[in-house]
Amino acid sequence: MLPEKMIELGTARSVIRELFEFGKKRAAEVGAENVFDFSIGNPSVPPPEKVNEIAIDILKNQDPVLIHGYTSAQGDAGVRQMIAESLNRRFGGNYDKDDLYMSTGAAAALTCCFHGLCCEGDEVIVFAPYFPEYKVFIEKAGAKMVLIPAEIEGFQIDFDAFGKALSPKTKAVLINTPNNPTGVVYSKETIKKLAQMLRDKSEEYGNPIYLISDEPYREIVYDGAQTPWVPKYYDNTIVCYSFSKSLSMPGGRIGYILVCPTVEDNKTVYAAIAGAGRSLGYVNAPALFQYIAAKCCEETSDLSIYERNRRLLLDSLREMGFHCVEPKGTFYLFPRCLEEDAMAFSERAKEFDLLLVPGDGFGCPGHFRLAYCVPTERIERALPAFKKLAESYKK
Amino acid sequence: MLPEKMIELGTARSVIRELFEFGKKRAAEVGAENVFDFSIGNPSVPPPEKVNEIAIDILKNQDPVLIHGYTSAQGDAGVRQMIAESLNRRFGGNYDKDDLYMSTGAAAALTCCFHGLCCEGDEVIVFAPYFPEYKVFIEKAGAKMVLIPAEIEGFQIDFDAFGKALSPKTKAVLINTPNNPTGVVYSKETIKKLAQMLRDKSEEYGNPIYLISDEPYREIVYDGAQTPWVPKYYDNTIVCYSFSKSLSMPGGRIGYILVCPTVEDNKTVYAAIAGAGRSLGYVNAPALFQYIAAKCCEETSDLSIYERNRRLLLDSLREMGFHCVEPKGTFYLFPRCLEEDAMAFSERAKEFDLLLVPGDGFGCPGHFRLAYCVPTERIERALPAFKKLAESYKK
Repeated sequence: MLPEKMIELGTARSVIRELFEFGKKRAAEVGAENVFDFSIGNPSVPPPEKVNEIAIDILKNQDPVLIHGYTSAQGDAGVRQMIAESLNRRFGGNYDKDDLYMSTGAAAALTCCFHGLCCEGDEVIVFAPYFPEYKVFIEKAGAKMVLIPAEIEGFQIDFDAFGKALSPKTKAVLINTPNNPTGVVYSKETIKKLAQMLRDKSEEYGNPIYLISDEPYREIVYDGAQTPWVPKYYDNTIVCYSFSKSLSMPGGRIGYILVCPTVEDNKTVYAAIAGAGRSLGYVNAPALFQYIAAKCCEETSDLSIYERNRRLLLDSLREMGFHCVEPKGTFYLFPRCLEEDAMAFSERAKEFDLLLVPGDGFGCPGHFRLAYCVPTERIERALPAFKKLAESYKK
Repeated sequence: MLPEKMIELGTARSVIRELFEFGKKRAAEVGAENVFDFSIGNPSVPPPEKVNEIAIDILKNQDPVLIHGYTSAQGDAGVRQMIAESLNRRFGGNYDKDDLYMSTGAAAALTCCFHGLCCEGDEVIVFAPYFPEYKVFIEKAGAKMVLIPAEIEGFQIDFDAFGKALSPKTKAVLINTPNNPTGVVYSKETIKKLAQMLRDKSEEYGNPIYLISDEPYREIVYDGAQTPWVPKYYDNTIVCYSFSKSLSMPGGRIGYILVCPTVEDNKTVYAAIAGAGRSLGYVNAPALFQYIAAKCCEETSDLSIYERNRRLLLDSLREMGFHCVEPKGTFYLFPRCLEEDAMAFSERAKEFDLLLVPGDGFGCPGHFRLAYCVPTERIERALPAFKKLAESYKK
């Protein structure tokens, strides 16, 4: 009598949740400091101090009716103007406030895009490994997720498989770079080749294929790496952004959708996305966080801690014999397991109180995800456990 | 190629928006103080001072990683506990944190309910006059809105029409009391009779019919009126609440869903609603506003200003010959127009720089909505214009 799928989504305990429960149990037995949880992708570094300073300044000095009131559905005009100007400064675009739609985080940005763009039966192409909620969001919009298997040598794109998956039903292609769970940043060459194939196929089919770029980790890159600005390479790009990761405020639920002015019929696409937001109950993105985001949109929390953690983990794991593609961003590593079955590997890791997420849920078996947005000390204390885990496979 | 309905929803200019644009134009011509806008239902009274005090206290004194971090999908456990205890104190229930799901405002509460409860083709009964977005939300969930015509003598319920509309397809009945746009509060007798009919029909059909009570105006009542606590009268009640109106913070996007423990299979219903929230992209309700709402859930902004406005407008309009059902709550009046065609009436009102929303959009022609959440001075200045409008019909 109730929609089965909704019950399932509200009931299913994720692997990460199972690990969390196991961790709680073990913490009671051996002490929290001896349980090494690397399962959760929550920013562990506080927001830049400016976030709270600005929040308090707004609360103290601005008209309370205004700051707590509705904004227009697409977001406060001044906020959108400031973010557009920042994008223009940083990426040399020519964006205007009316190209931006403020969203209640990146998840909402994505659902608004899928519901705004997709008709029943349309296909959205996603590259493994991928953030598992993509499938939930795409299917709820009545579309089908078409998954391209992982290119495990470098976690760029398997273009052969991609070429075969494109079809007249392809409404959109979704990329996530820097990537959760691999930490890999797509190279300019990858983006260029992807763009060329999309242009060719759009022309062949006589319909635009939209490139949805989900980039909440855009600023979280290391060793001087840069995330290519996707709209530079492909006209029909829609950017979904969130301040959750760069500003360490995922609870605030604030992000935006940029419908580039180069998108075919961009005003209609924008209207469809706004209409989707309206129909899903997104009245406006949280107002106070819109004002905060606008004033902090060129800040990041202190990324040096992630950088230190990444170096320490990557070097140590490699030394122990783990194979891991060099990640250039995010706060994840995605090494190969020491046996084929990632579920079994994750189970064995638990014997050493290491909580590691198997890659299967990300569409990439044989690997595991390590979220290193944790205190450095946890990594230091965990290294002997990793060593024991590795050695257990040598016996 | 794009979903037509989404484009339409994102493009359609509402009547209220048209009035807003007219008002802007006229303000430039005759001065803003001479344009009498009664079209928008935005709280005009600031939030209680406690809201900002608590927000600043949280920002200054609590762990920034925690207050800006994700909460669990259903909302922070401590927040839900505090709200459950408040409901128990005020309404004598026996609610627990696990009966509550924190939502991103009342709109999200409703969309999560409709998507969580309704299968394709299910029907949701709504009583005119009604908040127009209900139709958008219900249809997006794949259900059909069945509208019961208004009972214009008292804006309670036309039970004959309601009885005929109930069918085995009825998944839910939606009520909104105190009501937007009429300001009327359903009496205990109305709720009791409604409950009895729903019980009878649920039994006849062998399926529960859920009563969704949308009550963002619950506390905004006058003359000692009280909003009956609906779950007391009907077991299968799901309450949707928002802090937007009582705390004057619609921008914050914070509310909750209460799945009463008396609801049949309440855990499954709760799971389906949570699954819907997840699939629509509602990761968690804005965290900071969860913490604020929990600590302010028994506060309201200063309602005496609305009460004064209501008295002044109601008495003055009645004296001029307007017929208006006595509203006991909200900040709306819904008088009869002075001609049958509410659109024509609204047009004529514009000649006197009065911006009044015709009732047609609320499913109740022949009436107009007056939002009196405005400075009292605007009402005082507007009264001569209302008088001229009334007199223009006597000629």
